[in-house]
Amino acid sequence: MLLQLSFNEKKAEMCADVFASNSRDGVYSHGLNRFPVFVEQVKNGFVDPLAEPECIEQNGLMETWDGHLGPGIYNAKICMDRAIVLAKKNAMSCVSIRNSNHWMRGGTYGWQAADAGCIGICFTNAIAGMPPWGGKDPRLGNNPLVIAVPRKEGHIVLDMAMSQFSYGKMQEYELKGKQLPFAGGYDREGNISTDPAAIRQTKRALPAGLWKGSGLAMILDILLALLGGGKSTAKITESGNEYGLSQCFICLYKEDLYEYLVNEIIAFSKSSATLEPGGDIAYPGEHTLMRRKKSETEGIPVDETMWAKVLRM
Amino acid sequence: MLLQLSFNEKKAEMCADVFASNSRDGVYSHGLNRFPVFVEQVKNGFVDPLAEPECIEQNGLMETWDGHLGPGIYNAKICMDRAIVLAKKNAMSCVSIRNSNHWMRGGTYGWQAADAGCIGICFTNAIAGMPPWGGKDPRLGNNPLVIAVPRKEGHIVLDMAMSQFSYGKMQEYELKGKQLPFAGGYDREGNISTDPAAIRQTKRALPAGLWKGSGLAMILDILLALLGGGKSTAKITESGNEYGLSQCFICLYKEDLYEYLVNEIIAFSKSSATLEPGGDIAYPGEHTLMRRKKSETEGIPVDETMWAKVLRM
Repeated sequence: MLLQLSFNEKKAEMCADVFASNSRDGVYSHGLNRFPVFVEQVKNGFVDPLAEPECIEQNGLMETWDGHLGPGIYNAKICMDRAIVLAKKNAMSCVSIRNSNHWMRGGTYGWQAADAGCIGICFTNAIAGMPPWGGKDPRLGNNPLVIAVPRKEGHIVLDMAMSQFSYGKMQEYELKGKQLPFAGGYDREGNISTDPAAIRQTKRALPAGLWKGSGLAMILDILLALLGGGKSTAKITESGNEYGLSQCFICLYKEDLYEYLVNEIIAFSKSSATLEPGGDIAYPGEHTLMRRKKSETEGIPVDETMWAKVLRM
Repeated sequence: MLLQLSFNEKKAEMCADVFASNSRDGVYSHGLNRFPVFVEQVKNGFVDPLAEPECIEQNGLMETWDGHLGPGIYNAKICMDRAIVLAKKNAMSCVSIRNSNHWMRGGTYGWQAADAGCIGICFTNAIAGMPPWGGKDPRLGNNPLVIAVPRKEGHIVLDMAMSQFSYGKMQEYELKGKQLPFAGGYDREGNISTDPAAIRQTKRALPAGLWKGSGLAMILDILLALLGGGKSTAKITESGNEYGLSQCFICLYKEDLYEYLVNEIIAFSKSSATLEPGGDIAYPGEHTLMRRKKSETEGIPVDETMWAKVLRM
């Protein structure tokens, strides 16, 4: 499909691999299920399959790249690879990119850094989909923050979007006719609500941690603008379409990290009594790894309707 | 008082200045009100007034320091200063410290970096005071994360602890006989609660963003351990006293940051209708700056009982 859309082989394979890996890891919303939207974006000209990212500024540790509206997955993989190379040489690096596109699952690039033995931190902006704290209208992107740490027994990867529940997750609850387990946004009367349908209608999702997630979403967008000089959530939203995004990839590399201390931290958390009988306490990324192993032995579950849709494309 | 406790003049002045500045900025819990606790910690031997922090490992960009249990404020100021110097030379830096002590208000060191024209990111660990997501027992520190960005019209400084409400804030609500405005933790029956007294009793504060703040608190502790090799929240908690903490100070410096884009982001957020009539939408650090200006013209409000207590010391 991507080859038909003028992707070259390398680019097509890299993008297809990430979509498939996202489904394998259980992030269905940014795996197969998102592929038709991605194809639409290529057809509509928001994603340029021929574009190559270009380094436009460098000083040895920090670089600024221009994504020239190429595929977000491709650009992000290249930027994180570049950050890894720079960090392995110099201990630290920061690669910013402007005019890129949706990178799908942020965690992808965290796992990439950790696979290379680096601590990876990355974040992206997005079209406004969440009101700032104290406001009614969407002004903040759901700007995910990823922090990844390499570990022999399985990397620790925090992949945290800034709303308490994503719109995709709320839709899942709505389709099942269920309420959200915690407050997720405001209803039409301006009350805090657990009703996914009501929140999806008002588009007033609650930031994770309320004023805290609101502040974090704003400052991530500010960091992206400052370092990369690209479009902020304000400009993306003004354009009316979610394209031309800004991203940042930070790596730290040290040969002699105090790795033995990490398992002590995890063990301490797991030593707590669980809230529910038989409940679990997980480190960030633990469920992803469990799902990945399950997919690798049992196959990757797909939504049949979506699968049929992709086959028909 | 500090001179009497064997602080030298420089160290005494630096610590006193930070306590006073924290009160000036409205962070009373870590200003004057905290001073008696700090003095207790010196008297009990948890804080060594004679200790000097020492660089024990360096590679040009990343350094590891040992705080030798000196005053947390002093050590943190020195480490952030060191990170600023390194970043101004090399664009990026990361200074980790082990065996330090409570740094009081994290924001202090964010403002310090921004005053020097740097983007500053810093975080600390703490004694366990919050259950991990899915757990009942305190296993996570309230590990605050600070992200600071320099700006001519006033820096942008996010200073975010990992629980939705600090125990200090909950105590304030309890003393006023008020409920929390949002869920803040669990009561004795294991229900999510807005009752500050009930939550303070169970010591089951809710992480900001629920599973998200829980994961963020854990991964910050992991980063601190990996980079600095010091005590994790597990070891601090095991010791029974909150001392010997780990901290990390990251700076980024670039002469030509795209500063003009920052005000565009702030303006966009402020352009939203407010939830309450006459309500406000603030950027991180805006309220601090307003409070600082007010204190500078009108004086710093102090709790009379606490003031009398300090005068009697």
